[in-house]
Amino acid sequence: MLRIIPLGGLGEVGKNMTVYELDGEIVVVDAGLAFPRDEHLGVDLVLPDMGYLKDRAELVRAVILTHAHEDHVGALPYLLREVPVPKIFGTRFTLGLVKSKLDEHGLLRSVELIEVDPDAGSFEAGPFTVELVRMAHSIPDAVAVVLTSTAGTVVHSGDYKIDHTPVDGLKTDVGRLAEIGNRGVDLLLGDSTNAERPGFTPSEKTVGEAFRTIIPAREGRILIASFASNVHRVQQAIDVAVQTGRKVCVVGRSMRKNVNIARSLGYMDVADDVFVRPNQLADLAPHETMIVCTGSQGEPLSALTRIAYNDHQTVSVERGDTVIISAKPVPGNELRVHDAINRLARSGAEVLHQENAPVHVSGHACREELRLLLALVRPKAVMPIHGEFRMLEAHAQLAREAGVPASGIVLAENGTVVGLDADGARIVDKIDAGMTFVDGLGVGDIHDVALRDRRRLAEDGVLIVVATVGEDGAAPPPELIARGFGEGAEPLLDELREEAAEVFTELVEDDITEIKLLQEHLHDALAQLVYDRTGRRPMILPVVVEV
Amino acid sequence: MLRIIPLGGLGEVGKNMTVYELDGEIVVVDAGLAFPRDEHLGVDLVLPDMGYLKDRAELVRAVILTHAHEDHVGALPYLLREVPVPKIFGTRFTLGLVKSKLDEHGLLRSVELIEVDPDAGSFEAGPFTVELVRMAHSIPDAVAVVLTSTAGTVVHSGDYKIDHTPVDGLKTDVGRLAEIGNRGVDLLLGDSTNAERPGFTPSEKTVGEAFRTIIPAREGRILIASFASNVHRVQQAIDVAVQTGRKVCVVGRSMRKNVNIARSLGYMDVADDVFVRPNQLADLAPHETMIVCTGSQGEPLSALTRIAYNDHQTVSVERGDTVIISAKPVPGNELRVHDAINRLARSGAEVLHQENAPVHVSGHACREELRLLLALVRPKAVMPIHGEFRMLEAHAQLAREAGVPASGIVLAENGTVVGLDADGARIVDKIDAGMTFVDGLGVGDIHDVALRDRRRLAEDGVLIVVATVGEDGAAPPPELIARGFGEGAEPLLDELREEAAEVFTELVEDDITEIKLLQEHLHDALAQLVYDRTGRRPMILPVVVEV
Repeated sequence: MLRIIPLGGLGEVGKNMTVYELDGEIVVVDAGLAFPRDEHLGVDLVLPDMGYLKDRAELVRAVILTHAHEDHVGALPYLLREVPVPKIFGTRFTLGLVKSKLDEHGLLRSVELIEVDPDAGSFEAGPFTVELVRMAHSIPDAVAVVLTSTAGTVVHSGDYKIDHTPVDGLKTDVGRLAEIGNRGVDLLLGDSTNAERPGFTPSEKTVGEAFRTIIPAREGRILIASFASNVHRVQQAIDVAVQTGRKVCVVGRSMRKNVNIARSLGYMDVADDVFVRPNQLADLAPHETMIVCTGSQGEPLSALTRIAYNDHQTVSVERGDTVIISAKPVPGNELRVHDAINRLARSGAEVLHQENAPVHVSGHACREELRLLLALVRPKAVMPIHGEFRMLEAHAQLAREAGVPASGIVLAENGTVVGLDADGARIVDKIDAGMTFVDGLGVGDIHDVALRDRRRLAEDGVLIVVATVGEDGAAPPPELIARGFGEGAEPLLDELREEAAEVFTELVEDDITEIKLLQEHLHDALAQLVYDRTGRRPMILPVVVEV
Repeated sequence: MLRIIPLGGLGEVGKNMTVYELDGEIVVVDAGLAFPRDEHLGVDLVLPDMGYLKDRAELVRAVILTHAHEDHVGALPYLLREVPVPKIFGTRFTLGLVKSKLDEHGLLRSVELIEVDPDAGSFEAGPFTVELVRMAHSIPDAVAVVLTSTAGTVVHSGDYKIDHTPVDGLKTDVGRLAEIGNRGVDLLLGDSTNAERPGFTPSEKTVGEAFRTIIPAREGRILIASFASNVHRVQQAIDVAVQTGRKVCVVGRSMRKNVNIARSLGYMDVADDVFVRPNQLADLAPHETMIVCTGSQGEPLSALTRIAYNDHQTVSVERGDTVIISAKPVPGNELRVHDAINRLARSGAEVLHQENAPVHVSGHACREELRLLLALVRPKAVMPIHGEFRMLEAHAQLAREAGVPASGIVLAENGTVVGLDADGARIVDKIDAGMTFVDGLGVGDIHDVALRDRRRLAEDGVLIVVATVGEDGAAPPPELIARGFGEGAEPLLDELREEAAEVFTELVEDDITEIKLLQEHLHDALAQLVYDRTGRRPMILPVVVEV
């Protein structure tokens, strides 16, 4: 019997990872991370609990990646540290980004990356014959994974939309999907993100049309914030820049990285002389420039947030400028994005965002597209994946309406073991599948990241810093609560107290009052000091109170 | 010169309050509160800084209320404690709710409430001749306020939409607005909440149509969560209950209060025998019941959240039930509402909400309605109010497009003093207008609420409680950080420490793991103890960490 075990991505948005286990061999589809919620104080990243794979490390034959978004590949470095994965399969662009990520983590030599052309037929991975099928999404080169074995044929959709006019012309391959459906599909694991939304998701091309309408009509500087990995959107923006005689400045580490990789692999087509560096912006008139940057989610230390709060080295926004936020706030980020929009509007910029202009489309299939996939693949059973419970349930309802029998609807959770054999798909077991927290020293510091589960956390301790800022700029020294630092930690705590006081005074003197920024800076300074002195990585919770 | 000073509601959503000052006399329009953001740890409510009025208490002649939403009337009790307001003007339903609120605060005798029929002509308030004009909104009896004086005529829209088919038939009075426009309007202060949204807001009636489609087709129990003050929506839901032979159970203190007041004043029409008590629900079949409750914002201690987390005394949700969340999450509440939806869906209920069914409409005018108001009133100058900066700016843009000259567009902030005289409207000064925090002992405890501004906070001190919960249910005693408790506070702190440990252990033993609930309970227990011992009200910040 084929055992299918989602380690993440069910009952949540993020950290997608699914185990396929047959005859003592394991293949994993995707290894994603999630971002912490506000209540996960002091946590930088959340990973699936990969204990099941660690305990069976010698059985793991391969990881197959559907696409390069963080919620599908972000846990890969942490998996590779614990489990010797012999092979990683993926498309060209996916592996391009993954290679860069593994390189940063110093893990590139430990694994073989195997590039697959979706149109070049099947390959073997463990006990499976695998085909990749092109799916349109908000990142190039996304695919569905079809796993055929003695247990039957499973289609794992990955993230997708049915975009008939994608920017690169590489449409969701409905012909291949139909062909696979005609051969017979025993189980479909399908993306449920937009299962509650009626109709069709508009094509990525419509965003380009909006850019072509908006940008030529503007006289000032153009700033566009988007997800760094959405290189087709960036390409569409830059195309309009070129047509309107604007030079492009790419701001933000991840945006620069993605643009570089996309250009070098041929996924973006921009001449070298289109780009200028941030320090060259001052030499150009506003109407000669476009700034493409990160920060569409209002992330505290991102380019756009720094620009909005007038805290960026080289870029500022003025009356007459136009800022386009070409993204939707991820739930939980709404207030931060609104704050950034208000700050930018206050500087006199016109701010266009998804609520007032057609400058963003989703990367996920809506209800009519989910119905279309069900009609093409005609699966005997359906297991909704990628989504909160309400989305999975909505997807299950669509499957029912498509004629999938009730016995073939598998509403699983993280850790559910779904069995597939000649008798069909059904829930057969349950394993532990919680969260693993990652707490780094600071942004960009990826070599020394701490990986811990809930049990290991206590070993390194917890350090809580409480700082208060007054309206009058008073900044009394922050107080510290330490747990699990053990005997003889007083000298270290004294030193930490001094460091906190010093950092905090500096920040307040620099007029930095945004609470999130104060928290980040305090966290990073104390984490570094503890690590330098002890090599340990306590969870650090900065609490800043306005009084 | 007429001085117009917004004390709140500009650059934010909430705590709307505007001062009109002429010839040494002051009239205030609305006195609203706001709800704290996550970073306002330990704060229950946020009020406008009313210092300007306190310093001029003897000049205040009246408060005029546009409608009874908390963001327009919630600060009234706190204003009345500091400023002897002789008269409060409002419509019948507005005063009905306000009377109940003032009664709870023991403030009813201190003020004269004067009911105004909008169709009955004008009245005098201080130096102004005042007219009220009916406006449709998501609460009955909303009005715009027209203030005529030697300085000219000002229209203050309040919250509104142009609903041509409101449930009570009382439409936005476009005829009166046109007549006032024809007489000449010098300044319009207009609601900007939806100024970024294209088109028209659908009529409240469309929600009734959705109820009439959805409810008769359902066999199980129906739960509807909405804002307690939206009594027309509740009426529409109950009408369908009556038609389909369901009894109605009203759950949640504020919902019961609003329904009672609305019925006794004639704003709802429901026969007594339609209602059942929660303890009678068990005697009825699911298809014979409808539960109308609060909690549409996922508030931690509300009826719907308790029901979703299986923590409600009398109501639970099962497979076959339908839950209708007839509200939109206020920004910042999205994750809580999503959590509640997922919990309910997991219990087997079908959950309908604004993303998957037409069960909610906004109470605010969209762009075409704002244009219509501008066309009717034809103001010489426009001052956008009620909204974040981006919304005010969008409204200003609509005013420009409507032909208001640039010199007549007044983009003000809280505390801006706008002058109006024969030379028109313009910014003339600036006063302090910050936030005042309210920190109560607990839910429903309104007599002993602490009112404090940032300066007074320090006097009562700050108490931070840090508790950690482990996956295994371990609950080590919480730690306390106290500030500003002064000499000799150790015995009290010891007692607080014991209390915190006891409360926390009980909660964990009761299997209460939701962080927000743990925080609320810790906060309330410690606040009560400190108050009992000292009569003081420190700010109490519960920090609960999952490890």
